[in-house]
Amino acid sequence: MKGLPSVERAVAVFSRFPGIGQKSAQRMIYHLLRHGSVEVEQLISSLQMLQDRVHTCRNCYNLAEGDLCWVCEDSRRDPTLLCVIEESSDLMAFEKAGLFNGLYHVLGGRLNPLDGIGPEQLQMNTLQSRLSAGGIKELIIATNPTVEGEATAHFVAQLAQSMGCKVTRLAYGLPMGGELEYLDESTLYQALAGRREF
Amino acid sequence: MKGLPSVERAVAVFSRFPGIGQKSAQRMIYHLLRHGSVEVEQLISSLQMLQDRVHTCRNCYNLAEGDLCWVCEDSRRDPTLLCVIEESSDLMAFEKAGLFNGLYHVLGGRLNPLDGIGPEQLQMNTLQSRLSAGGIKELIIATNPTVEGEATAHFVAQLAQSMGCKVTRLAYGLPMGGELEYLDESTLYQALAGRREF
Repeated sequence: MKGLPSVERAVAVFSRFPGIGQKSAQRMIYHLLRHGSVEVEQLISSLQMLQDRVHTCRNCYNLAEGDLCWVCEDSRRDPTLLCVIEESSDLMAFEKAGLFNGLYHVLGGRLNPLDGIGPEQLQMNTLQSRLSAGGIKELIIATNPTVEGEATAHFVAQLAQSMGCKVTRLAYGLPMGGELEYLDESTLYQALAGRREF
Repeated sequence: MKGLPSVERAVAVFSRFPGIGQKSAQRMIYHLLRHGSVEVEQLISSLQMLQDRVHTCRNCYNLAEGDLCWVCEDSRRDPTLLCVIEESSDLMAFEKAGLFNGLYHVLGGRLNPLDGIGPEQLQMNTLQSRLSAGGIKELIIATNPTVEGEATAHFVAQLAQSMGCKVTRLAYGLPMGGELEYLDESTLYQALAGRREF
């Protein structure tokens, strides 16, 4: 906004959020300015709380406010099943579906050499420690079905297999509710290659 | 997010923004948590700057960092033309188009008795003062074409006319690039009622 550097700066900062463009950021800032300082203060205090309280779980590297996250703290979970994922948001998708009763290991990203993300930048050493501590019967790899996710999956699989651990990964195929007509070739290929007897 | 009140709270605060639902707010918070404290700090500092620096112009009640906004400060603007609008964001729409060379008066909302917004809650007294100070040849009403905007327009028109000021308002009609087929009845009615000789 012409002549208002503080508004311009706030718009620039807000448009760095994923899915938020210049226009949406502007709307958000106008909303704040229209609703007065209470709204801005609540926003600041919620951000400060986020900053102060949220850490990563020392066991699985999921987001946590305490020492351990709520999954690791839950004694009813099966500690012999370990699901490896990229981010805490992937964990949330699993937990929302409520289908998995084991523990997780959050890598904190995926291998991406071009962006300088190697195994050292991810929670690979800590994964190795958890595997070598023993007691894990199956490692389920649930990285994203992208090029980098696949590379990460292969790296994790090699690591775990070299330590004698059973490794599985999520099935690839048709998404439920989708239509064949609109499916991309590689998904179709995976669905065909992974076909099972009826 | 289960077990993480600070994340839950931040999501709740962010989903109060217009056009931001629960899901988008979650994505935004995950983005912040993923990008570490630098991003959160920049966000907080931009909000604090907004809070500290942005006031309303003492002349037209547009957003301003100084005493006057950049429109009122600009001596090349025509002070005999005054355009009445609801919000600063409406002013920005005019300024972006670059079609208007007069000054503005930002009401800070629209009349809405059900929400307790009467003339006292808007910048009506200050508008009256500006009109009575003299020198304004034409008052252009540019409130939004909604029920409340119309009511506000009528109120402003009566106020200005009682003070002997010429009052005009924006034309209603077909939006450029639109198609008659998809137009709502009231716009079509306005377009027909306001037809002009070719």
